[in-house]
Amino acid sequence: MSTPPAGPHARRSQEPAAAPPRTRGPVHVVGTGLLGASVGLALRALDVDVVLHDPSPTAVAMARDVGAGRLPADDEAPARLVVVAVPPDVTARVVGEALNRHPHAVVTDVASVKVLPWAELETHLGADALARYVGSHPLAGRERSGAVAARADLFAGRPWVLTTRPELEAATLGAVRDLVLDLGATPVPMSAPAHDAAVARVSHVPQVVSSLVAARLRDAAPDAVALAGQGLRDVTRIAASDPTLWVQILGANAGPVTEVLQALRDDLDEVVTALRALDADPAAPGARATVARAIRDGNEGQARIPGKHGAPATRYEVVTVLVPDSPGELARLLHEVGQAGVNLEDLHLEHSPGQPVGLAELSVVPSARSHLEGELAARGWTLAG
Amino acid sequence: MSTPPAGPHARRSQEPAAAPPRTRGPVHVVGTGLLGASVGLALRALDVDVVLHDPSPTAVAMARDVGAGRLPADDEAPARLVVVAVPPDVTARVVGEALNRHPHAVVTDVASVKVLPWAELETHLGADALARYVGSHPLAGRERSGAVAARADLFAGRPWVLTTRPELEAATLGAVRDLVLDLGATPVPMSAPAHDAAVARVSHVPQVVSSLVAARLRDAAPDAVALAGQGLRDVTRIAASDPTLWVQILGANAGPVTEVLQALRDDLDEVVTALRALDADPAAPGARATVARAIRDGNEGQARIPGKHGAPATRYEVVTVLVPDSPGELARLLHEVGQAGVNLEDLHLEHSPGQPVGLAELSVVPSARSHLEGELAARGWTLAG
Repeated sequence: MSTPPAGPHARRSQEPAAAPPRTRGPVHVVGTGLLGASVGLALRALDVDVVLHDPSPTAVAMARDVGAGRLPADDEAPARLVVVAVPPDVTARVVGEALNRHPHAVVTDVASVKVLPWAELETHLGADALARYVGSHPLAGRERSGAVAARADLFAGRPWVLTTRPELEAATLGAVRDLVLDLGATPVPMSAPAHDAAVARVSHVPQVVSSLVAARLRDAAPDAVALAGQGLRDVTRIAASDPTLWVQILGANAGPVTEVLQALRDDLDEVVTALRALDADPAAPGARATVARAIRDGNEGQARIPGKHGAPATRYEVVTVLVPDSPGELARLLHEVGQAGVNLEDLHLEHSPGQPVGLAELSVVPSARSHLEGELAARGWTLAG
Repeated sequence: MSTPPAGPHARRSQEPAAAPPRTRGPVHVVGTGLLGASVGLALRALDVDVVLHDPSPTAVAMARDVGAGRLPADDEAPARLVVVAVPPDVTARVVGEALNRHPHAVVTDVASVKVLPWAELETHLGADALARYVGSHPLAGRERSGAVAARADLFAGRPWVLTTRPELEAATLGAVRDLVLDLGATPVPMSAPAHDAAVARVSHVPQVVSSLVAARLRDAAPDAVALAGQGLRDVTRIAASDPTLWVQILGANAGPVTEVLQALRDDLDEVVTALRALDADPAAPGARATVARAIRDGNEGQARIPGKHGAPATRYEVVTVLVPDSPGELARLLHEVGQAGVNLEDLHLEHSPGQPVGLAELSVVPSARSHLEGELAARGWTLAG
């Protein structure tokens, strides 16, 4: 008898077996971009039957080829669940079509605004059809788009809003909640208006403001943008987003976004007034207090943001180690971290092209820090700082 | 004869020997916080004599203990170079004292604003003293402060502005440029007004705006902030900055900051007007074009930001690998990346607490991607996506 091979598959087989899926197929996915194809991949991994639809034959073939599901058969069985994953401006129309075409299915969509599609559906559909609809929104995404960028774990640990209504039956909501749980996401029940107000604040306004800050760089001198640091890069990263998509999102959530932007503009006016006063007179009374309050208010707001994956913000401590620029050295470092009995919570390697060393930032729980530093120093590693 | 040990020190000894330092000591560092102590550490690594000064005996002892230099002797030799690294609001005063106390030394400072300190010095000092002063500003920093956070490589590859003036003698400027080169930074000559306008755009305005976005989260419902994603985290990361420091910086650069904020406010007004029009009438003529232009202008500005370390933005491709949550597995992955002959440009491990696997994101040059994917798949690793 031979022992099983010690490769990664062997190790993975020691994980607890996944629970059987709550969702029963066939699930129809309409729209096979990043989100739709990721839903398909995740359900296929649970052996749920997934039927793919997209107006583009290329897009649907691509989604099938990455393993997100199959094409519809000629004598397709009635759908039990339909997931509409199309751009915001056609969501209501496609949801309406799905409700008509699949008269016994629960239908959900994944659009990032919820009030406007619902209002459109209400004007066009009867109560029987509407009773089978639950709007939803997974807070997940990537910078790349399309089925090629899809991942079965795209939704793992992410919040997924389920929009509730007083008249919604528990079984209908339950069908979508089961889907969300099967995909590894966290269901967050919320009314559609509360959802739209929340994403205005945590997603849509940050997008607008990031774009406005980046736009100020257009006419900056080259030696000015050369002074960019990590702060500017962070603030403007999402300014690279797709204008077509964002016009749809902002247009469909114009009311709540305007409300938050207006409040932000009032705060901005106060800061501008205070700075103008300080420019005229460095001793201008009250002006410094206004500026300090704006920064402190930002401290308070920033501290409310939970950590990744919706978990409470965990403070890890970072041990920074100089690593010679060679793949073998980094592997050896991590091997020795393991030997020291320390579990890495996060790891980031910063490698400057052309420099002989990189910096590995090892995040560990605070109680492990000094032990790890001692062990690494004893093994001859150079700790930065 | 035994072979040398194969530890990290042995490997590091194979690097090319560092060039002899251009800077000749003693260099006096006044103010032993993060920046001053990092200057000291870097110079000590080159064997340059460094003398440390700080109004706080604790701070100066801490800097000495981390290896940033020594305390002044009773019969201290005259300084050749003085680096003033104190908060912005006392920079001019301390620079003036250093010019008076060290009558043959070149004096520089590292404050993040340059016009106001120079104006203060001009009103208090004679031409002879001023001729020995070069204001400078390293674009480097960390989220932690104090000598304990200091690093010899803090300035490596970062831009370091040297403020030029028509009457400045080449030898004086050269002394500070030599220091900057010894610390591994890139000297960027610039007038003081051009510097202040540049940092208003790439640093001070992003700080204000990040704080304003974060401040809007203070009165958000808990289930609203729970929807935060990576975009919000990035935009608001620097909103955690120190109010005391930022009041000094913004107050000292009020004119240029106001000018950029005013332009940003005009852009914001256009977006608010357009969104308000769309809220009243989804077909409002021209409104969508205004919103799209704001996002596209952001795309253009963002694309101008160079990559880390001032290098041109390099596009790496990311190979994402599922790694069982065990330190030994990650080490084995990196070992096998090395065996595949692929050099990692960057690495990030995302580990969700409580999940049995993490995701390692391996950044490689585009030409290496498919080779690496094939090698890892052949070794049994699961690639995400």
